[in-house]
Amino acid sequence: MDVQIEGGELIVPHSDRLLTVLRGDLSIRNGEIVRVGAEGEVPPDFSPERVDASGCAVMPGLVNAHCHAGMSLLRGYADDLPLMRWLAEEVWPAEAHLTAEHMYWGTALSVLEMLKGGITTYADMYFHVDQVARVTRDLGMRAVLSLGLIGEAPGAEEDLDRSAELAERWSDDPEDMIRIQLGPHAPYTCAPDYLERVAGLAEELGVGIHMHLAETRDEVRDMEGLYGKTPVQHVHDLGLTGLRPFIAAHCVHVTAGEIEILAEQEVGVAHCAISNQKLGSGIAPLAEMIGSGVRVGFGTDGACSTGSQEIWNEMRSGSLVQKGMHCDAEILPAAQMLYSATRGGARAVGFADAGQLVPGARADVIVVGLDSPHMTPQHDILSLLAYSAGREDVRDVYVQGRPAVRDGRLCRGDESEIRNRAAELAADLRKKVREDDG
Amino acid sequence: MDVQIEGGELIVPHSDRLLTVLRGDLSIRNGEIVRVGAEGEVPPDFSPERVDASGCAVMPGLVNAHCHAGMSLLRGYADDLPLMRWLAEEVWPAEAHLTAEHMYWGTALSVLEMLKGGITTYADMYFHVDQVARVTRDLGMRAVLSLGLIGEAPGAEEDLDRSAELAERWSDDPEDMIRIQLGPHAPYTCAPDYLERVAGLAEELGVGIHMHLAETRDEVRDMEGLYGKTPVQHVHDLGLTGLRPFIAAHCVHVTAGEIEILAEQEVGVAHCAISNQKLGSGIAPLAEMIGSGVRVGFGTDGACSTGSQEIWNEMRSGSLVQKGMHCDAEILPAAQMLYSATRGGARAVGFADAGQLVPGARADVIVVGLDSPHMTPQHDILSLLAYSAGREDVRDVYVQGRPAVRDGRLCRGDESEIRNRAAELAADLRKKVREDDG
Repeated sequence: MDVQIEGGELIVPHSDRLLTVLRGDLSIRNGEIVRVGAEGEVPPDFSPERVDASGCAVMPGLVNAHCHAGMSLLRGYADDLPLMRWLAEEVWPAEAHLTAEHMYWGTALSVLEMLKGGITTYADMYFHVDQVARVTRDLGMRAVLSLGLIGEAPGAEEDLDRSAELAERWSDDPEDMIRIQLGPHAPYTCAPDYLERVAGLAEELGVGIHMHLAETRDEVRDMEGLYGKTPVQHVHDLGLTGLRPFIAAHCVHVTAGEIEILAEQEVGVAHCAISNQKLGSGIAPLAEMIGSGVRVGFGTDGACSTGSQEIWNEMRSGSLVQKGMHCDAEILPAAQMLYSATRGGARAVGFADAGQLVPGARADVIVVGLDSPHMTPQHDILSLLAYSAGREDVRDVYVQGRPAVRDGRLCRGDESEIRNRAAELAADLRKKVREDDG
Repeated sequence: MDVQIEGGELIVPHSDRLLTVLRGDLSIRNGEIVRVGAEGEVPPDFSPERVDASGCAVMPGLVNAHCHAGMSLLRGYADDLPLMRWLAEEVWPAEAHLTAEHMYWGTALSVLEMLKGGITTYADMYFHVDQVARVTRDLGMRAVLSLGLIGEAPGAEEDLDRSAELAERWSDDPEDMIRIQLGPHAPYTCAPDYLERVAGLAEELGVGIHMHLAETRDEVRDMEGLYGKTPVQHVHDLGLTGLRPFIAAHCVHVTAGEIEILAEQEVGVAHCAISNQKLGSGIAPLAEMIGSGVRVGFGTDGACSTGSQEIWNEMRSGSLVQKGMHCDAEILPAAQMLYSATRGGARAVGFADAGQLVPGARADVIVVGLDSPHMTPQHDILSLLAYSAGREDVRDVYVQGRPAVRDGRLCRGDESEIRNRAAELAADLRKKVREDDG
């Protein structure tokens, strides 16, 4: 399917890691961007569907570099609690009841929310990964998926086999829309020997790693106590950071030396500003990481820890808190944040050929309306996108050149069915936890 | 006009400064809430318009306790700059060209944005206050308005007279929709003798004060250098905090002793989390202020310093950054934030009879949809409102019992006209600044 998106304000690469605005047209052919340029010119032999984007910004799709999509069934379930109590007292007892059906519809709810908010790719770690992959494909999104591996759990060995099977089963997609990685949950839930086996398997399969890292002060203290090393140093010494892509979620409590390792090893850091604040984990050194050349993208974490799964807010929260903490308005300016939310995130999760409007890139493109009161007037479109835009401004979403959202409505699925099924299954989950307690 | 809002999830007062959810009906008569209770009962002699709010939350309108509404014409005009450069190099040169026409339409744009986002009352400090009052009345919003007073400016004396005239001119509204206050800009732009004259005039007129206070570290340092006192102590000693209501915007850099003064004097603190972060001013001790019993509301400041004028994001940003900085997930929970965004703000700006769904209160009420993906499922409606909701979820807005927004559309004004006029005047302003530079 060929598409010509016409007359929009194109957000295109400027110099290294920056962006600029160019009024023009964007041509998509076979899932790829083939032309970005002046208005009114159509490539030869090209009879595309024409989409009017006048009065809109046209930009790369947003990337959610870390989430647990199925957790949307637990949105608002256990707020205002610290991470370990939240996990042990609320989340794990509920997760024990998650079935394949919960995972299909819970993930559907998140994919719906993410697509409508302009996210075209997400990186996930959770359970029942076949269901996650299936619904992601059904609704037309791109994803990097992993089964969460808890080294201490009874099924830890079988989960390595399951991960290998998943990688094989989902590797035959010619469009490379779904990729599988290995998902060792965290250094405090996976012992060194297990992590070494994970690294060996990842190398054998040729897949990347997705892992929580340096999320809380307690984790740092415990790792130092057990291994005499901080978390990033620990997994680096175990050989994990040499695997590509290595997605490290959170990295809240990292030293200058660890930031150097993250940069040198091209680790993709998923910065989860809202989750880290909301769970009281802390505030990551985002400005320092970006300043040191770390590949940073933004992640929503699960809806149960953030409330919503929106990269607009993650980007803004990430930038604002740094400006406030450092008392420095000039750090992390609009264009740099938009870069991290798009191209930065794509690189962090391993899609080096996505996240920017250039010929040859995957056609993950969103059209954002500029006509609401909060987007008026238009002195600076990059500023508006960074500081004023929200999920409701997203009009159209293309993933791999195919429409996933049009005029704010999901193209390939029934929104009401997804919301209703997810609500029923969430109520069912709550009932089961209460029966356990009863 | 009588209205019965039926079958919604009513957000009602619980214990002191907390809220809870009650399914039921809300009755409005002559601008006042007359009944909040079980479904299906209508007060005697009451033939209201009936509004179906099933599947929606019904809550008090949000309060914007500090803004410069006309600055919407400068949205995105000068981002990523520190406060004093932002003011001196960008904002003041543009403001020099603001005419009454700019102010009418710039304020209209903000009122439109605020109403659609569920804000029913705002407190403003800016220029051409007659225009601000007129458009606020035209579009059906409630406001506390002040002319910004710069003691050092040539027109400082005349501006005191103008303020007195404004107070007289707008005091005849039987519904008390528009109130005038005195707006001494800040302790660093108004010398002590001028502030004393402001205090005297306020007392004489029986009006309150609206002032920027303790916004930056530089301000604290300068006040200490000049007067040997921190800013709050300084204005307290000048007798300003004894005037009610005294709206102190920002209060970023305040000591424990100053927090005590703010609490004891019942000062309304307008916490502007996003503006303070974005301009690099710092992060106010919100948790400590609320913990000490200070009357805190949330303020958006101007669109030029925040990007958007939305209390949902202000509330969230304010709470999240405290949880993150203190590494404490339990502080400032959902219900407390919703209280500050509604009742807290109303008290801070001096409308003690607004901001809560109880019989006898002013009928400033909003209906918020719960059917979008990001509001599904509904384990906890207070959590959803605090952490997941946004401006686009606001369906209906009533101010003083009259509909100002219905089904997301402005009732008393033409949205396109407002956006178009504001965009034209913003372009005109920019052109004039360029001519100055040229």
